[in-house]
Amino acid sequence: MTTDEKYMTMALHEAHLAYEQGEIPVGCVIVADAGNQPSAISSQQSVVIGRGHNLTQMLHDVTAHAEMQAITAATETLGGKYLQGCTLYVTVEPCIMCAGAIGWAQISRLVYGASDPKRGYATFAPQALHPKCTVTSGVLADECQQLMQEFFLSKRK
Amino acid sequence: MTTDEKYMTMALHEAHLAYEQGEIPVGCVIVADAGNQPSAISSQQSVVIGRGHNLTQMLHDVTAHAEMQAITAATETLGGKYLQGCTLYVTVEPCIMCAGAIGWAQISRLVYGASDPKRGYATFAPQALHPKCTVTSGVLADECQQLMQEFFLSKRK
Repeated sequence: MTTDEKYMTMALHEAHLAYEQGEIPVGCVIVADAGNQPSAISSQQSVVIGRGHNLTQMLHDVTAHAEMQAITAATETLGGKYLQGCTLYVTVEPCIMCAGAIGWAQISRLVYGASDPKRGYATFAPQALHPKCTVTSGVLADECQQLMQEFFLSKRK
Repeated sequence: MTTDEKYMTMALHEAHLAYEQGEIPVGCVIVADAGNQPSAISSQQSVVIGRGHNLTQMLHDVTAHAEMQAITAATETLGGKYLQGCTLYVTVEPCIMCAGAIGWAQISRLVYGASDPKRGYATFAPQALHPKCTVTSGVLADECQQLMQEFFLSKRK
């Protein structure tokens, strides 16, 4: 298992928590990379500094996407609002809103699983991320996609 | 004073509160329109159901823009996550993130003051809003812009 797969598995765990609560199953973790960490972290290893899953139903709040929860948690961990040197792992391609937040937070790397051609930022706001942010897509994409499909099929029954 | 100017004046009041706290001065109010209100509201008049101002510094959180605060407050007021029949007034053109949130909330009308060519959604995510959302720009634009300029000049001293 690669490092990206390891953290995407953690994000999938968050997505499963969402599923169990009747929420659209998207999960996210934010990792402060070893050797490239914000000053508030000084570990030799990569460290998970925030995690979250979709809570829009429970909170009655469209802004409560997995990435927004994780960004707020990570900035709380660090006590600062920028997340340079951090990688955000999310099971589904971020929407416009979340990509905007990832951009404001100056996250250095985005890794996502399944693509979202209907709502994803890559189609509708391709310049949303910080110009230096690198992107890897398709990590455990089948598992991430399958969980979404199962959820929507279960809602149609 | 027109109705739009009345509510933009309230949004400007929120922006002044941000200014006084050392935050970038953007303010927002959300109004449930008379005759076109969500079911949880049944007034004959328009009603302010959420307000907010930028709190990114205080909360160490890039997601704490005025519009996000106001949307969260409005959905809390209504107990539901959609804001059809509502108008969002904000002193500065929303960014990509906030426009995405305005879209998810299905807000029916957006009114903003000053344009933001560097960060505004109209340039970088023109499809972010709900397809039926109507937009009015330039309401009290001079006052909204001037407050921003004063803030950034004061920071350079």
